[in-house]
Amino acid sequence: MRNIAIGQAGGPTPVLNASLAGFIRASTESCIHLVLNGYQGLAEGRLHVMSADDYRIIEEHCEIPGAVLGSGRYPLTPQRMLQALEHLQQANIGTLVFIGGDGTMLALHQLSKLAASIGYDLQVIGIPKTVDNDLTATDHAPGFASAAKYVATSVRDISRDLEAMKNFEQVRILETMGRNSGWLAAASGFFKKQASDPPHHILIPEQRYTWDQIISGIGETLRQYGYAVVVVSEGVEVEGDQVEHGIVQGRQVLGGISKRIEHHVQSSFGVMARAELLGMQQRSSSLAVSQIDYMEAIQVGEVAAKWVTSGQTGVMVSIQRENDREYQISYQSCPLEKVAHGGERLLPAAFIQDPDRYKRWLRPLLGSDLKEYPAALNRSYLDAEKQIKP
Amino acid sequence: MRNIAIGQAGGPTPVLNASLAGFIRASTESCIHLVLNGYQGLAEGRLHVMSADDYRIIEEHCEIPGAVLGSGRYPLTPQRMLQALEHLQQANIGTLVFIGGDGTMLALHQLSKLAASIGYDLQVIGIPKTVDNDLTATDHAPGFASAAKYVATSVRDISRDLEAMKNFEQVRILETMGRNSGWLAAASGFFKKQASDPPHHILIPEQRYTWDQIISGIGETLRQYGYAVVVVSEGVEVEGDQVEHGIVQGRQVLGGISKRIEHHVQSSFGVMARAELLGMQQRSSSLAVSQIDYMEAIQVGEVAAKWVTSGQTGVMVSIQRENDREYQISYQSCPLEKVAHGGERLLPAAFIQDPDRYKRWLRPLLGSDLKEYPAALNRSYLDAEKQIKP
Repeated sequence: MRNIAIGQAGGPTPVLNASLAGFIRASTESCIHLVLNGYQGLAEGRLHVMSADDYRIIEEHCEIPGAVLGSGRYPLTPQRMLQALEHLQQANIGTLVFIGGDGTMLALHQLSKLAASIGYDLQVIGIPKTVDNDLTATDHAPGFASAAKYVATSVRDISRDLEAMKNFEQVRILETMGRNSGWLAAASGFFKKQASDPPHHILIPEQRYTWDQIISGIGETLRQYGYAVVVVSEGVEVEGDQVEHGIVQGRQVLGGISKRIEHHVQSSFGVMARAELLGMQQRSSSLAVSQIDYMEAIQVGEVAAKWVTSGQTGVMVSIQRENDREYQISYQSCPLEKVAHGGERLLPAAFIQDPDRYKRWLRPLLGSDLKEYPAALNRSYLDAEKQIKP
Repeated sequence: MRNIAIGQAGGPTPVLNASLAGFIRASTESCIHLVLNGYQGLAEGRLHVMSADDYRIIEEHCEIPGAVLGSGRYPLTPQRMLQALEHLQQANIGTLVFIGGDGTMLALHQLSKLAASIGYDLQVIGIPKTVDNDLTATDHAPGFASAAKYVATSVRDISRDLEAMKNFEQVRILETMGRNSGWLAAASGFFKKQASDPPHHILIPEQRYTWDQIISGIGETLRQYGYAVVVVSEGVEVEGDQVEHGIVQGRQVLGGISKRIEHHVQSSFGVMARAELLGMQQRSSSLAVSQIDYMEAIQVGEVAAKWVTSGQTGVMVSIQRENDREYQISYQSCPLEKVAHGGERLLPAAFIQDPDRYKRWLRPLLGSDLKEYPAALNRSYLDAEKQIKP
């Protein structure tokens, strides 16, 4: 009889706990150890046998954002990995499962290799999560759809507000998550139908920009529509510079590019500009959970539980789209090695060049309950007046 | 036959359009003029007779944030007021209705007095809206409940995220709207049950603080729980200083106190702190609309339409609570003069001293569909470990 250990690592999502609940419900093994506080808890031996009470609490958290086991970031040095393996062996763990993103999968892969090298027969399975969709080898991962829904609806709503207030405030610059990839920032264009609809400019890390380009583009929008909504991914480089919020444990925390754009816009045009981060709600808002995201989050957990029994190891659960016309997915196994060395998943050039194609890809993930807003009356009348006096 | 003119002014809310729709549905007058872009539109004569198409578009906007007529901020000088009255007289307007906050009500009151002084018999009615609940002479106004729901749920969700990540990031400082009043910031404590629950510190403009107090308080929380969530109203003064984002048309735009606290926390404790504005979503998020807010927004519009017929003038629709035990309100008329000179409505001392009392007041406004989150497992285990080794 071999025990299972499961933990959560990296930044939480609104559906990270759903994957844990899915795994635990579908698990047929009687003895599950919970790893508290991610890889740090693993290295420090914070493993607890799941009690009936714990099971109930995890169930209660199925729809709650955050990480019920505690998560975190923790660089796993070789020394710490050996400690982790010792703790696992002491608890007679035969299977280690972690829910996380690319860093988590890399660490799982390394643990798996190290275990093999010391003759410890450890089954290892990864359950994917992300908010910025940078995890490779999967069409998308749980967490992204809810974050994208939050970004799309917030930018639409904030734009409505600005459009009504343009005699007072003319430019809003909204900063999204996305260190290397523009999936989230580009999702802000989901409701855009024509050039005059906000957001007018979406800046993503996949592309290079100069200050001149950015500022003259915003100036042109101001002249045409009297206001401008700009969305920028935190990882965007302008003239080779990225804006850093700070460095924590050797990890660069990005943030602040929107504030720089605000400054340039104000000094170039003398208008009122406001930079705002879309913030931590992107990875935590219970208000924006996409139903399909929630269901898939549970399902990746269930699939991992089945794989424990069927004996798969060194793999991550990956979501593949079966069909371009209607939304249909399958769960496939992907070697952790491929995930670990696949690099970050960037927004494909086809989606950058053809935003409608990206929107078609995105639509099923966001859900069918999203409302398109008709144009406001002040805009219709303005357009009519322009047509009368060209 | 006298015509009605209606406009929207000031910062939008998620339910500002609901009040307009409520008014228009309940109006028995056949000829309604729409004032585009608030008081600026009024001074510039941007009045349009509502067509059947316009009616349909306003109906379609009933659940949409922003201001379908266009809104804005515009200082009404005596000169501009006279222009506005001229345009109204030309269109044979007998009734002027505006939906807005305290500035809007003051302007309506002045217009009403000026009209009387030139012998123009103009009926004037105000429909209230607010997000920060600073409008006097009403228990609350439409817009506040949805903003408070957004703040309460966002702070709860962001806190869950931080609690799971405290080995990486220790302090979050979340800045709310509220120039002079702490209603919104205090709403962030809605889900708090005990001292250890976040938010650990709520700073409101009604109270005075020193940097020493703020920083030593956060330090104590860090020592006790390993992380700290701080909520601060944009209008908070520390040692006599308020943080300004800029000045637009003579109006001070606040913002940035959270960033200063971040700086002090980082330099005092060397921890990772992150300041974020809860942002424009407070007054625009379609995700956080409170059902009761939406209904009341429609009703204040309907009441104003009835008053047009019954001939009330120089008044604002005010919401009064009839009962402390169960939620029951009535709509009363309040003289615009009283609203205009009543000053800003601050959070009462009784609510500051007894947060539970404020929560009881707030509960019916936020709605009954809000979920309390149970404690996460990592916290329960941490508490248990502390009890074992005190």
